[in-house]
Amino acid sequence: MKTILIFGSGRSAPSLIKYLAKKSIEFDWQIIIADKQTTLAKKYIAGYSNCKVVDQDINDENSRDKLIGNADLVLSMLPVRFHTLVLSGCLNHKVDLITPSYESKEMKDLEQEINSAGILVLNEMGLDPGIDHMSAMKVVDEIRKDGELTAFESFTGGLMAPGYDENPWQYKFTWNPRNVVIAGQGGTVRFLHNGRYKYIPYTKVFRRTERIEIEDYGTFEGYANRDSLDYLDKYGLDGVSTIYRGTLRRPGFCRAWDLFVQLGVTDDTFIVEDSESMTFREFINSFLPYNPTDSVELKLMQYLKIDQDSGLMEKLKSLNIFSDQIIGLKRTTPAKILEHILKESWTMQADDKDMVVMWHKFFYHASDGKSYQKTSSLVVLGEDSSHTAMAKTVGLPMGIMAKLILNREISLKGLHLPVKKEIYEPILKELKQFGIQFKEQIIPQTDNYENQPIF
Amino acid sequence: MKTILIFGSGRSAPSLIKYLAKKSIEFDWQIIIADKQTTLAKKYIAGYSNCKVVDQDINDENSRDKLIGNADLVLSMLPVRFHTLVLSGCLNHKVDLITPSYESKEMKDLEQEINSAGILVLNEMGLDPGIDHMSAMKVVDEIRKDGELTAFESFTGGLMAPGYDENPWQYKFTWNPRNVVIAGQGGTVRFLHNGRYKYIPYTKVFRRTERIEIEDYGTFEGYANRDSLDYLDKYGLDGVSTIYRGTLRRPGFCRAWDLFVQLGVTDDTFIVEDSESMTFREFINSFLPYNPTDSVELKLMQYLKIDQDSGLMEKLKSLNIFSDQIIGLKRTTPAKILEHILKESWTMQADDKDMVVMWHKFFYHASDGKSYQKTSSLVVLGEDSSHTAMAKTVGLPMGIMAKLILNREISLKGLHLPVKKEIYEPILKELKQFGIQFKEQIIPQTDNYENQPIF
Repeated sequence: MKTILIFGSGRSAPSLIKYLAKKSIEFDWQIIIADKQTTLAKKYIAGYSNCKVVDQDINDENSRDKLIGNADLVLSMLPVRFHTLVLSGCLNHKVDLITPSYESKEMKDLEQEINSAGILVLNEMGLDPGIDHMSAMKVVDEIRKDGELTAFESFTGGLMAPGYDENPWQYKFTWNPRNVVIAGQGGTVRFLHNGRYKYIPYTKVFRRTERIEIEDYGTFEGYANRDSLDYLDKYGLDGVSTIYRGTLRRPGFCRAWDLFVQLGVTDDTFIVEDSESMTFREFINSFLPYNPTDSVELKLMQYLKIDQDSGLMEKLKSLNIFSDQIIGLKRTTPAKILEHILKESWTMQADDKDMVVMWHKFFYHASDGKSYQKTSSLVVLGEDSSHTAMAKTVGLPMGIMAKLILNREISLKGLHLPVKKEIYEPILKELKQFGIQFKEQIIPQTDNYENQPIF
Repeated sequence: MKTILIFGSGRSAPSLIKYLAKKSIEFDWQIIIADKQTTLAKKYIAGYSNCKVVDQDINDENSRDKLIGNADLVLSMLPVRFHTLVLSGCLNHKVDLITPSYESKEMKDLEQEINSAGILVLNEMGLDPGIDHMSAMKVVDEIRKDGELTAFESFTGGLMAPGYDENPWQYKFTWNPRNVVIAGQGGTVRFLHNGRYKYIPYTKVFRRTERIEIEDYGTFEGYANRDSLDYLDKYGLDGVSTIYRGTLRRPGFCRAWDLFVQLGVTDDTFIVEDSESMTFREFINSFLPYNPTDSVELKLMQYLKIDQDSGLMEKLKSLNIFSDQIIGLKRTTPAKILEHILKESWTMQADDKDMVVMWHKFFYHASDGKSYQKTSSLVVLGEDSSHTAMAKTVGLPMGIMAKLILNREISLKGLHLPVKKEIYEPILKELKQFGIQFKEQIIPQTDNYENQPIF
C-alpha cells in the first residue's frame, strides 16, 4: 500500500484531495493530509477509509520528518516559504515531491542535492504556473515539428463566472488577495515585441493593457506580467521575436485599479501612522492634499483627473473607501489596509462561482511557406465556493501527476517543471475528463504580424 | 603648530580649502589635503606655504592611519561611504572629525565608541544638511523664547544664477547628478500638514509642488523631500502640526521631470538590454508601445498626454533624447543612461555661475496672543565654476567650525548635528562676512493658518 502525504489543505486543496481520495480506492493508496487546521480536510475525506487527516505544525521537525519517512510521495500545498522545509525531509528519506509553486531560488540551489538523492522534485504543477506551461508547450512543440514560432503571448486570469460578476469591478478574490494588491510591484515589466525589448514601469502597467476576446465569454483585458523574458529560457524560445505574458481582468478593472497605484495606497513599504483608529475615509485622505473644506471625493477626482461620467467613482464607491468605518489594524502598510478594505467587498460568498480563463496566441511560419496565427483558450467554471475553478485547475494537475508517479507511468528524476511532453501529454489528456480542455483555432495571416501594433 | 587634515578635494572643497589656507597664516596651522587626485588641490593652495597636498588612496589603511595620527582635526569631504574608515582612525588617535554628510546609521551605531574616545564627531555641517539646520534652529529657538511654533516648512535648491539659466529647464547640475536622477525614489514621502499625516508616492511627488516667491529672484517651485517627519526629532519639534521639507527648482521643471518618472527612465533597478549599442532614441522608445510607423515623439506625446503647446516637448528635445547618438554604456540601468544623457546638456561650463536658494517658513502664536508668519530666505551666487555657491555654502561652515574647534571656542564632545546654539550662532555670524546671510520677514496672520490649503 503506497502512501501519499499532502501538506496543507487550504483553498487550493479540495479538488486535489477529492481526486486522490477517489483514486485511493481504485489503487489501494493511503492518503495522509497534514495540517494545523483539520476541520475542512476532514470534511473533504468523509467516507474515504483510506484517507486520514493529522494535526501537524509544519515547523515541528520531528513529526514532519516522521510523516515524510513513511510516505512514498509528498505533495506540498503550503505557502512557498515552507517548501524547503518539506524538501529537506524528502532529501533525507529519498521521497519525490510535487508543488504548485514557482521554483524558488532556494530550491534551484538544492538541485545538486536533489540529483544526488535520485528523487524527482516537480514545481509549478498548478494552474499558473502549471497548466499554462503544459498547454503552451504542447502547441509550441507541435508548431516546431515543421514550422518556425515567431511570437507568443499568454494570459491567465482568476475571475468570477458570468452571472456572478455583478459588482462594478466584475471581480472578487479567488486567490491570495495580497498578490492582487501588490501585483506589478516586483520590478519593472520587461518583454520582447517584434525583436525590441520593451519596459513598463509600475506607474504604467495598468494603463497599457491589451483587449482579448474569448468566444462565448466576451471581452477581457490583460496587463503585463513582470517575467515575460524568463520564459525565453523556460520554454526554450530563443529567437522568438515577441514574448508577452499577462494577467486577465474584465474591461475597466485595470484603469480603475491604476487609481490606487497613482494614489499610493498599494504601497507595502511603510507603516501608516495611527492606522488602527483611522477610518477608511481618513486613510484615503492621507494620500490627498490638505484642504479644510473640500470633500475627499472631490479632491480625489481632481487629483486623479477622474471624469464624472467615467464610471470610475462608482467603482471606488462600491468598495466603501469613503466610509467612516474604522480600519482597526495596528501599525500596518497601505497595501495591507487596502487588502482589508477590498476583502469586505471582494470575498466570495458561499453561492458564488468563479472562473479561470487562459488564452495563448502563437504566430508561426509553417512549412507551406505561409504564416499562421493559432490561439488556444481555456475557460473553467467553478462548481461552488470550495470546488472553485481555481481549486480544480491548481489541484487536478497535482493529483494526476501524483497518480502517474505512483503508477510508474513517469519515472523522471531531478528538478523539473512541467514543460516536457512526457509530463504534459498525459496530464492534459486526463484533464479533459474534468472539463479542462483547450479550444484551438488557426487563422492564416494575410498581414505580416511584424507590422501589427498590438498594444 | 596645529594640523588640519582634509580628506578629499572634489567640487565641494575649493572654498573650504581657500578659507583654511588663509586662516593657516593667521593662526599658524598646517593644512594637509589627502586625495588620489592632487592636481586641483595643488592649484587651490598655490602660494600658501603652510599647506600641502599628499597623494593618498583612502583605502590604504597604513598611510591613512599615519596621517590621522599626526592631525589635530580631520575634515572628510569624501563620499559618505568612506566616513567610517576615517572615523575608525579618529577613534584610535582621539582626533575630532567633521563631515558635511548625513549622519549614517553606521556612524550612529558607533556613538558609544565616540563617547568613550572623548572626541567630537560632527556631521551634516554643509549646506543641506548643514546651513538648513543652523538657520532653522536659530529662528525656532527665537520663536520658542515666548511663543509657540505651529508650522515649519523648509526648501533648499542648487540652481543656476539668473542670466545663466537660459536652457528650457533653467537647470544644470551643481551637485551630484545621480542624486538628481534618483530623487524621490528613497521611499514614499511622509509629512505632517495641520496635524494630519500625508503621504505622496513617487509617481506624484513631482506633481504636488508648492510655489515660492523670493524677493528679487522670482518664483520657484518645491517638491517634497522624503524625510520631513525625521525633523520632528532632529529639531525637537514635537507638537508642531505642520512640517514639510522640499527641494527647489524653477517653475515647470518638476512637471517636465515627472515625464521621465512616468516613462520609467529614472528606474535604477534593472539592466537595459544592449544599452551599449543603443541610441538615445531607441532607449526612449524601449519604454513606449511598439508601432512600425509612428514616430517616437508622437508616441511619447500620446502616451504621456503631452499637449503640443505645453512647452514640455521643447524641454525634452533640448536634452537630445530623440537623437541617434549612441549611449555607449555597458550593462547599465535606465537611471545611469538618463544621467549620461542629461550630463551632455546640464554640465556647468567654465563661465557658468550657480545659485543656492534656501527658504524657511514658520507660523507661530506669539506672547501677544497674535499669530505670525515668519520667512527666512537665503540666496547665494557662485563666483565661478570652481568657487560655486554650492562649494561656498558646503565648505565655509566646515571651515569655520574647524577654526572654532582648533581655537577652543567650542569644546563639545560626542556625536552631534549643528542644531545647538553654541554651534549655529558663531557660524551663522561669520558666514555673513561671506555674503551668506538670511533675510527675515514677519507678517501678522489675519487668517487662521490651519485653514489655509497650501499645497
